[in-house]
Amino acid sequence: MHKVIFDTDPGIDDAMALLFLERHPEIDLLGITTVFGNASIETTTRNALFLKREWNIKAPVAKGGDVTYDAARPMAPWPVVVHGVNGLGDIDMPETIDDVPLDPRPAFQFIIDTVRANPGEVEIVAVGRMTNLALAIAHDPEIIGMVKQVVVMGGSFEKNGNVTPAAEANIHGDPEAADAVFTAPWKVVIVGLDVTIQTVMTRTQMHDLAARGGPHLELLAKISDPYIDFYSQQVEDGMVVHDSCACVYVVAPELFGLRPGSVRVVCGGIADGQTIQKPSQQFFPPSPWDDKPDQQVAMTIEPVKVVDLVAKTLVP
Amino acid sequence: MHKVIFDTDPGIDDAMALLFLERHPEIDLLGITTVFGNASIETTTRNALFLKREWNIKAPVAKGGDVTYDAARPMAPWPVVVHGVNGLGDIDMPETIDDVPLDPRPAFQFIIDTVRANPGEVEIVAVGRMTNLALAIAHDPEIIGMVKQVVVMGGSFEKNGNVTPAAEANIHGDPEAADAVFTAPWKVVIVGLDVTIQTVMTRTQMHDLAARGGPHLELLAKISDPYIDFYSQQVEDGMVVHDSCACVYVVAPELFGLRPGSVRVVCGGIADGQTIQKPSQQFFPPSPWDDKPDQQVAMTIEPVKVVDLVAKTLVP
Ligand SMILES: [Ca+2]
Ligand SMILES: [Ca+2]
Repeated sequence: MHKVIFDTDPGIDDAMALLFLERHPEIDLLGITTVFGNASIETTTRNALFLKREWNIKAPVAKGGDVTYDAARPMAPWPVVVHGVNGLGDIDMPETIDDVPLDPRPAFQFIIDTVRANPGEVEIVAVGRMTNLALAIAHDPEIIGMVKQVVVMGGSFEKNGNVTPAAEANIHGDPEAADAVFTAPWKVVIVGLDVTIQTVMTRTQMHDLAARGGPHLELLAKISDPYIDFYSQQVEDGMVVHDSCACVYVVAPELFGLRPGSVRVVCGGIADGQTIQKPSQQFFPPSPWDDKPDQQVAMTIEPVKVVDLVAKTLVP
Repeated sequence: MHKVIFDTDPGIDDAMALLFLERHPEIDLLGITTVFGNASIETTTRNALFLKREWNIKAPVAKGGDVTYDAARPMAPWPVVVHGVNGLGDIDMPETIDDVPLDPRPAFQFIIDTVRANPGEVEIVAVGRMTNLALAIAHDPEIIGMVKQVVVMGGSFEKNGNVTPAAEANIHGDPEAADAVFTAPWKVVIVGLDVTIQTVMTRTQMHDLAARGGPHLELLAKISDPYIDFYSQQVEDGMVVHDSCACVYVVAPELFGLRPGSVRVVCGGIADGQTIQKPSQQFFPPSPWDDKPDQQVAMTIEPVKVVDLVAKTLVP
């Protein structure tokens, strides 16, 4: 069994990824930690509680902070055009979820405690900004050696970003946090935009899942419909399952081709939030990538198999 | 006939590109302007004069400055491991070339005067740092509208750089100059490292050219031999003909696939000197790429045809 903490900013593709983790038979979901990004921390946390309730998820939800790792960073507006004002495609839903208790600890402390309680076993799947993870290792650097792996959806390595020509949204939203996470001496696998963009679940597939999967899948399809409309600018009638890709990596790493090399994040300037890897096989003069641990960046993906595994897991 | 100014830092692949321009029947080489980069300005200018003399080139040589566009930038050591201490593979050659006169004007003024004398006709092929071009348009912005096109070997758009994981040497050597050149409202075609790295002339091809091409080609082969040794880390026994690619574009643009979009250069930070294009077909929120002219970036190249055209031009 894979013991997973899911760090997330639901978020539509986050919702699908959450249901994947909940339903995959080899995954034991230990907790959900929320982060701001697709919406404010109040909204993403409410959304996590809502999904926990609607989907009968046992794992606790711990709320993240509401500022970037470097608190001096100015905040940008939320991407309401992608995820809706409420972060879940603007479906009807309550303002607050009062009947589901929140874990009393802040997200970073939940991560620390859970890692310490399961030394060497926890896999953190992080599909939002890296804020909670950076705070966790800043508060308790010893956990770095106690985490099995960190799997990130974020960044873009050989293609343009999405929020700027240089940067992908999760990393752009907190570059200092991401640089801290990627340069820490733990195993990080980064599944970036350049590979996730290839994974498209068609509207037909989604509607088929809803038809066969009962109310839980009907809810997911309802959330996802406006997201599919948004993505129609970029892909054929369907949704890119960005965040699910990181979850799939946990159980099916053979569907990804990885490249080792240290990874840095640009902080400031026009390339703010860009992820750049120094491939370990390639020679360079001395640079700020030196003496940082090799991380793994996904350079290739088998998109059809990834989407099929997601579908098969959501509705067996 | 293409009226070409060749802005160059010879440099081994620069030497081959120079001979290509001199020998191609559709190119009228109006002048050679030197820039520092592969070696100091004294060395690259001496090398240009040496090649002019050895190859009986009529075009005048005008010497560039010895500081970056932003003079406050610290200077890095010359890449002697690539081009040798003398910039031409450490072949035996005189310290100075006293019997070949230098054009009395600084390079940027030579560019201005030549463009003004041939309005709408001049194509600048720039295969070193962008320093001279940036100075020319800063001193006389009107020439921006009088140049037919600028063809640059530099940058890297979808792969790592060579001097850092982010940046290619020509652009990294003077990022502020490159940003000024790429954001000026003239037509710029950028042939970057990610496509030039595919163009390999084998050692056998080069020796064959030397055997058939007389003393001029024997000299080129002698210069190139250590460069081929250097490149053996990266490619099969042969030399990458980076700078010749930009020259080939002038006469055979159909061998390249271009992508339009504004191009900015990162100035400062870990990605210093990185080139980033905002593809004009792709939507982004407001960014520093907005309101800059679309330039053309080579995304694909036909490497075998490019190398064949170089070989056929050097020895018809
Ligand atoms: Ca997310
Ligand atoms: Ca050059």
